[in-house]
Amino acid sequence: MAILTTVEFTAPYLILIGDVVEESSAKTGFGIVQWRPDLVAGQIRFPDSPVDLGVPDMSVKEAAAIGVRSLIIGVAPTGGIIPEHWWVVVEEAARTGLDIVCGLHQKLMDNPNLVTAAMDSGARLIDVRDPPTNLPVGTGKKRSGKRVLMVGTDCAVGKKYSALALEQAMRDAGLKCTFRATGQTGIMITGSGISIDAVVADFLSGAVELISPNNEDDHWDVIEGQGSLFHPGYAGVSLGLLHGSQPDAIVVCHEANRPNIFGWPEFTVPSIVDCIERNLLEGSLTNPAILCVGICVNTSALSATERRVYLDVLSKETGLPCVDPIADGCDAIVDHIQNRFS
Amino acid sequence: MAILTTVEFTAPYLILIGDVVEESSAKTGFGIVQWRPDLVAGQIRFPDSPVDLGVPDMSVKEAAAIGVRSLIIGVAPTGGIIPEHWWVVVEEAARTGLDIVCGLHQKLMDNPNLVTAAMDSGARLIDVRDPPTNLPVGTGKKRSGKRVLMVGTDCAVGKKYSALALEQAMRDAGLKCTFRATGQTGIMITGSGISIDAVVADFLSGAVELISPNNEDDHWDVIEGQGSLFHPGYAGVSLGLLHGSQPDAIVVCHEANRPNIFGWPEFTVPSIVDCIERNLLEGSLTNPAILCVGICVNTSALSATERRVYLDVLSKETGLPCVDPIADGCDAIVDHIQNRFS
Repeated sequence: MAILTTVEFTAPYLILIGDVVEESSAKTGFGIVQWRPDLVAGQIRFPDSPVDLGVPDMSVKEAAAIGVRSLIIGVAPTGGIIPEHWWVVVEEAARTGLDIVCGLHQKLMDNPNLVTAAMDSGARLIDVRDPPTNLPVGTGKKRSGKRVLMVGTDCAVGKKYSALALEQAMRDAGLKCTFRATGQTGIMITGSGISIDAVVADFLSGAVELISPNNEDDHWDVIEGQGSLFHPGYAGVSLGLLHGSQPDAIVVCHEANRPNIFGWPEFTVPSIVDCIERNLLEGSLTNPAILCVGICVNTSALSATERRVYLDVLSKETGLPCVDPIADGCDAIVDHIQNRFS
Repeated sequence: MAILTTVEFTAPYLILIGDVVEESSAKTGFGIVQWRPDLVAGQIRFPDSPVDLGVPDMSVKEAAAIGVRSLIIGVAPTGGIIPEHWWVVVEEAARTGLDIVCGLHQKLMDNPNLVTAAMDSGARLIDVRDPPTNLPVGTGKKRSGKRVLMVGTDCAVGKKYSALALEQAMRDAGLKCTFRATGQTGIMITGSGISIDAVVADFLSGAVELISPNNEDDHWDVIEGQGSLFHPGYAGVSLGLLHGSQPDAIVVCHEANRPNIFGWPEFTVPSIVDCIERNLLEGSLTNPAILCVGICVNTSALSATERRVYLDVLSKETGLPCVDPIADGCDAIVDHIQNRFS
């Protein structure tokens, strides 16, 4: 029987950003450098590349010489396709024995030259969107350790960022904690996880149980959220994630001034209070003690004054710490967690 | 671009039941004969087979001669594996040009001899558990026509049977209606559908939208349910199914005297009233007018007297028609639907 596991890859990394011309196309690379700087050895840029991750430039040969283990495709180009002239570098890395890690729709496994190069050297080709095989059905059995799950009023409201910022703040406060990735970018940034929206539906909550296994009683898993219970396309994913996480705590993520579900204009974004209530109602199936410990709001559409008023009003209404994780960090939420779970 | 479609196969059928020794192993075959007798030409049994579907015995050659289009593997043997000595018949049918239809975990596509035989004759090999490729994400857009979805307090409470019995009763009452299969046995019985628990999670509600497309305003899709919103392993599937169905009406299916979720003894079966309320709450996202039109109870654990009392009490409590679809049929629910939607 195959061992049940998540997608995983090995540091140190060399990050390939090639010749992308906009910083936003290299978001994955920047994310790794921001959240896991200790895992990054360097970057590969092509001549005249205007984008710079701020880490040493390095050839494949130089990287291999200092013990780099993985080449990460650190970009999300238009169309999700690796540009033709990049493959020379990717193949060189595979021939040199570096694992290749890619989170794009285009699959490494579909490039026969690359497969041959990897087979010859023993390098692994890791398409992080592909879930592991042999996933289990969710058991619902109580696991040891503590868990906090990001949930959202919609997709793309900052759940991944909030989880990474919360993990950082918990670590700064001396808590034991681990970010658990449930989407390809989160996996690329932190080196392991499962892209749960790519899992066969029967194994949704089982995959999440695998991502967040038994742990020490005072250890927190900070689990990246996906979608929203109020999303007509993706709510099933969000419910499986909620049940499999069996979270002790949830943090609601929201974007200020977003009226409708992004890309689904017929559907309105729920109120934060409705979102809290629905997640507690559904989440109580696998953890009756579930509670909400804070709210993370993307306030980029507001002025500094508006932001302060918005968060103050929301905090009074809900009795919870409300922050913009980019502007404020998540210390207030960590304080609240420590109060509620001490 | 590939055309979006469901799994489909073509009548008339020849049903292979080989030499299974128990009627329960040939449930799929019996189901087809019970619910779609007009599609069945005959059966293939091996010498001394004790099981009989009550349709003409026929060889592959005889079936081909009278225009049979598909050989259906009509059994669910232990382990989900087709017995070795059956393959001779399956290959003969494929060589003769009959499509082969199988709902087992074992895949037809994994048998190289069978693949060769099918390629030579042009026969299709249809593994009904495999979803079509290129499934869309759910749009949530309102579709024309009416829909009634079976929902459950648990798995295996009779949702498929209830849907088939409801379709029958609607047809008997002169309503336009179509059973829509969402699981492999339902697909085997009715000839089309998608096994939605096998769909990649992102496309759950999108697959259901595909199963139940726009239709005439007075046409009813009777959609087979899966799992339960209260199931720690499968609730995500049930929510995607609920949202994609955007049902005008739900029928709650339940088994009397079942205390715990089957196979998950730590989880209790919800009350029928809680099950109604939760499904209406979640279902209102994609159809705010959703209502519950009846309750189907598997009362096989009760005596005839207990059954009558049980259903009467439940009907008084909920104000809805409550039936055991096997003992009573679904006429009472059809009457209620006609009253509510006339």
